[in-house]
Amino acid sequence: MNVAIIVAAGRSTRMGGQVDKLWLEVAGRPVVAHAWRRFDECAAVDRIVLVGRPERRGDFEELARREALAKPWQWANGGPERQDSVWNGLQAAEGAEVVAIHDGARPCVTCALIEATLAAAREHGAAVAATPVSDTIKESLDGRTISRHLDRSRLWAVQTPQTFRREVIVRAMQEARQQGRVYTDDTGPCDLIGQKVFLVRSPAPNPKVTTPADLPVVEELLRQTGAR
Amino acid sequence: MNVAIIVAAGRSTRMGGQVDKLWLEVAGRPVVAHAWRRFDECAAVDRIVLVGRPERRGDFEELARREALAKPWQWANGGPERQDSVWNGLQAAEGAEVVAIHDGARPCVTCALIEATLAAAREHGAAVAATPVSDTIKESLDGRTISRHLDRSRLWAVQTPQTFRREVIVRAMQEARQQGRVYTDDTGPCDLIGQKVFLVRSPAPNPKVTTPADLPVVEELLRQTGAR
Repeated sequence: MNVAIIVAAGRSTRMGGQVDKLWLEVAGRPVVAHAWRRFDECAAVDRIVLVGRPERRGDFEELARREALAKPWQWANGGPERQDSVWNGLQAAEGAEVVAIHDGARPCVTCALIEATLAAAREHGAAVAATPVSDTIKESLDGRTISRHLDRSRLWAVQTPQTFRREVIVRAMQEARQQGRVYTDDTGPCDLIGQKVFLVRSPAPNPKVTTPADLPVVEELLRQTGAR
Repeated sequence: MNVAIIVAAGRSTRMGGQVDKLWLEVAGRPVVAHAWRRFDECAAVDRIVLVGRPERRGDFEELARREALAKPWQWANGGPERQDSVWNGLQAAEGAEVVAIHDGARPCVTCALIEATLAAAREHGAAVAATPVSDTIKESLDGRTISRHLDRSRLWAVQTPQTFRREVIVRAMQEARQQGRVYTDDTGPCDLIGQKVFLVRSPAPNPKVTTPADLPVVEELLRQTGAR
């Protein structure tokens, strides 16, 4: 069984803390509704776990009714850190063989990409949607000067879905929790248990809505990829 | 004296080699015309060197007339690699104290950013427009699996202008040429002469036109930043 865990529990600090980016309207519906629908319509996904802040639970329930979402879904409360939210989502996904963890602020994800990460995770244990980096990236230790020039041909920007055999990510995150380490993405803890993470090339743009300035681009992408 | 070197000699291999991205129309004029005008209108810039492929020289001369560009400019032939084009531009910029090297495919550059890199380069010798990386970046040695998780808080995406005291960049590139090393950005060779490169935070989006898909975003940005 494949379960999608949609993480929608952020506080949007980069939006100034006032606006919840997940609920901004784009192409006729909230950002998170697009993300949810993409999983709802993707045949490879059996069930969906929605992780949100408790005070938003009613909004999500109403959204599911309004969008007439077809797939079984359940709720999980978000935690203080992203990692805690994912952990709660994993508990709700008990019984899943493979879990696709997706950021609710990435509304342009395609079913083909979801399926590709599911297949790679089933085979290898851990897989992440990623795209080769096109920018020139430098490392700076002091935030003022360049410390190291990185080799662009070796760099990948990772997105979501980040997809795992459930027992793999549970084991990795247990280890992270025991060591008291906090990760901002879910592939990080895999190192702690020696699990290799496979890159699944994301052929279509799959941006994250981070600031209101991202919305016009996302709107255009949603139109192109068939949002109704 | 501050001289801008606009590098417009690429062959646009990522555009499929057929289209010259610099000449794509956006917001009423070619991409490269926007870039050129931004420097033409920026008071801190005294003179402009345009580096292009020899067969395009006539097009650039006609563009300067059509746009009624006010600032003195001169031509330099592009070379086989970006580094060779910059080198030719530096020869044409003899007499300059500070040079701002800019990618002709970045039409949204602002005068404020140009001035900030000029000031930093005058003080420190080398400065580059840059922005903190918002993506999660991984290193992969084999292109299939993640080899190393990078610390995002230390990563900067560098753009242009890349701005230098002319004698600094000439010395750095001479060293690179003597060692037979090829760099795809101009800050790289500074390491060879122990020159620190300062980061100048770019507050406004300053994207590079890389594929036709970038054009709608660039059009919107040009509108917002007052392209006429």
